[in-house]
Amino acid sequence: MGHQALVTARSQSPAHAPHDDPSAHSNRTMAVFTPVSETQAERMLERYTIGHLVSLEGIPSGIENTNYFLTTSDGRYVLTLFEKLTAAELPFYLELMHHLASHGIPCPRPVADRDDRFLTELNGKPASIVTRLRGKSEMSPGVAHCLKVGETIGRMHVAARTYPATLDNPRGPHWWAVTTPRVTPYLSAEERDMLVSELRFQGAHRHDALPRGVVHADLFRDNVLFADQDIGGVIDFYFAGRDAFMFDLAVAANDWCMGADGVLDPARTYALLEGYRDVRLPTPTERAAWPVMLRAGALRFWLSRLDDFHLPRPGELIHPHDPNHFKRILSNHVRSPAAWPIG
Amino acid sequence: MGHQALVTARSQSPAHAPHDDPSAHSNRTMAVFTPVSETQAERMLERYTIGHLVSLEGIPSGIENTNYFLTTSDGRYVLTLFEKLTAAELPFYLELMHHLASHGIPCPRPVADRDDRFLTELNGKPASIVTRLRGKSEMSPGVAHCLKVGETIGRMHVAARTYPATLDNPRGPHWWAVTTPRVTPYLSAEERDMLVSELRFQGAHRHDALPRGVVHADLFRDNVLFADQDIGGVIDFYFAGRDAFMFDLAVAANDWCMGADGVLDPARTYALLEGYRDVRLPTPTERAAWPVMLRAGALRFWLSRLDDFHLPRPGELIHPHDPNHFKRILSNHVRSPAAWPIG
Repeated sequence: MGHQALVTARSQSPAHAPHDDPSAHSNRTMAVFTPVSETQAERMLERYTIGHLVSLEGIPSGIENTNYFLTTSDGRYVLTLFEKLTAAELPFYLELMHHLASHGIPCPRPVADRDDRFLTELNGKPASIVTRLRGKSEMSPGVAHCLKVGETIGRMHVAARTYPATLDNPRGPHWWAVTTPRVTPYLSAEERDMLVSELRFQGAHRHDALPRGVVHADLFRDNVLFADQDIGGVIDFYFAGRDAFMFDLAVAANDWCMGADGVLDPARTYALLEGYRDVRLPTPTERAAWPVMLRAGALRFWLSRLDDFHLPRPGELIHPHDPNHFKRILSNHVRSPAAWPIG
Repeated sequence: MGHQALVTARSQSPAHAPHDDPSAHSNRTMAVFTPVSETQAERMLERYTIGHLVSLEGIPSGIENTNYFLTTSDGRYVLTLFEKLTAAELPFYLELMHHLASHGIPCPRPVADRDDRFLTELNGKPASIVTRLRGKSEMSPGVAHCLKVGETIGRMHVAARTYPATLDNPRGPHWWAVTTPRVTPYLSAEERDMLVSELRFQGAHRHDALPRGVVHADLFRDNVLFADQDIGGVIDFYFAGRDAFMFDLAVAANDWCMGADGVLDPARTYALLEGYRDVRLPTPTERAAWPVMLRAGALRFWLSRLDDFHLPRPGELIHPHDPNHFKRILSNHVRSPAAWPIG
C-alpha cells in the first residue's frame, strides 16, 4: 500500500464496496491502490473509440480494486485496475456483465478496445473500462425498493441462463469448509459450536437439488444504484458464480430486508419475494429451502467477515466490518426460521 | 398497405427515415405498416428480461419498417417489425449495432431475448427490440454539430474494423449499374448524358484502392440524434455495408455540410473532416479521392431518388423525394471539384 491515494467520498464503484449498516459507510476511508495519471488515461483512451479525456477522478472503493471515474468527450465511464483478480480470471466477469447488459439488465457494460478486447493492462495491472451508471445506493430501502430489487434479481437469473461460461461460487460450501479452520482459533466456544452446527445443518440439506445458475451472490445495498425510484443499475459482479438462485435471493434479503433488530422485516421481505416471483416463479423445492438459504447467506458473510477481521491481508480493508452483524442474523434465523411468506 | 396506421409526428426511428431539406420533413405523412396491439407487446415482453409494458406508441418512420416506442417498467426501447429485410439478412445489421455499441459508439443496442436471440417474429414479420436513444435530429446543423458528426464517423470506422461479418454496400457500383437502365426512360437527354458520364467517371477511378470497411453509408441528418449539443446516437444502420471510408464521409458531407445553393459550406465541411481526422487520419490516396467520393455520394442518392420517384413500390414512400436535389449537388461537384480542405 506504499503509494496509495486516500479518498473519502462515497460513490459508484463497479468493484468491491464493503457491506455494513448505513452508519458504517459514511465516513470510512477507502483507497485508490494504483494511481493513474491523466497522461496515462489519455494514452489509454487512444486504444478505444470513446473520445478524449475530460476528467479522471479516483473513486473510493476500497477492498479489491482501484477505480476511477473516467469522463470523456463521449460519455461517463469507470476505469478499473484489478488488484487481485488476474487477466485469466477476469473474462468470466466482464463477459457476464456484457451478456446481462445485452439482455437489458442495468449493469456496467465493458467497453471493447480497438482490438475488440474488454481487458487491457495499465500500470502492470489488468484493467477495463465500463460504462458508468446513474444513481446512488439506497441505504434505507423501503418496500418499493425491495420490490424492484427482487424483480431485478429475477431478471438477472433468467438472463444469465444463456450465459455460456460457468464458475462455482467462490464463496460456496467448499470455501466455508476451508475457511472454518482458519478462523476457529479466534472464536469463543459458543461461536465455534454455532459455526460447526451450522456447517452440519447446511451439509444435511442438499443444495444440489435446487435450481441454479450464475448469480451475483453479493447483492447488498451498496451494489444497487437507484436513480430517483428506478434502478440505475447493479454493480460489482466480482463475486458472481454458479449457485442456487435462492441463495442469491437470500443474500439480498439478509441485507435489503433486515431490521435493526437483526430480524427480517416482513413487509420488505414480502416485497422482495413478490418482485422476484413476478419474473421467475420459484419451485416448491426452492420455497421449502428458503429458511435454509437465509442461514446459508448469513453463514457465508459471517465467515468472510471473520476471515477479514482476524486474518486481514495487506491493503485489503482498512476498517474491516464487525463479524457480529451476521452472527446475530444467523442466530436469529436459527432460532426463528422464516418460512417462504408468499404463494 | 391495407391496414396501415397513419401518423404524422416526427421522432427517432431506428429504421429508414427519408432524407431531404428540413422543410420537406415537417409535414410528411408516414406509416406504421403492421399494427401491434398492447396485448401482443405484453406477450412479446414475456420472452425478454426488460420488464412489463408501460406504453406502446407508433413511430412515424415510413419507408421500410414499422416502429413503435416501447416503454417498459425498466426503460425505453424501440420495437421494429421489418417489412422488407428478411430474418436471414437481419443478423448482419443487428450484430453490427451490438458490436459498435460494445465499442462505445452511441447507437441502438439490440436486446437479447430469453433464448439469447436479437431477432424474433411478430405478426409474421421479423422483429427486434433495441434501446431507445436520447435526442432528436438537428436539421440546421452548425460547425459544432459537424465536428461531432465527423468524429463519430471516425469512431465508427475504427470500431467496425473488428466486426467479423461483411456485406458489400447494397447501393454501391453494382447497384448503380443495374439501376441506371431502369430509370433512364424517365430522364431528359441532358440527364441521361450526365448520368452516363458520371458512371464512366466513377468507373475510371478505382475505388478498390481506398481503405474500406463496414460503414453506415446513409448518415444523413435524420440519422443522428442530438441531445443538447451532444450526440445522443446514430440510428438506421439498414443500408450499412462494406465500402470506402471516404464514401461514407462524403455521403455525410453532402447532407450535413450542404448549403441552400447546393454547394458545400466550407466551414461545416472543414469541421466535419477535422472531427474525422481527430480519430482517423485519412491517407494521401483517400484525400486525393475526396472530390470523386463526393460525386459518388451524390450519384448514389440521385439514382435511388430517381428510382423511388419513377418506379415507386407499393407502400414504400408516400411522398417520394425530389431527385433534383442530388442532381444539382452532383452537377455542382462536377463543375467545381471540392479538394480535401485540410492537412
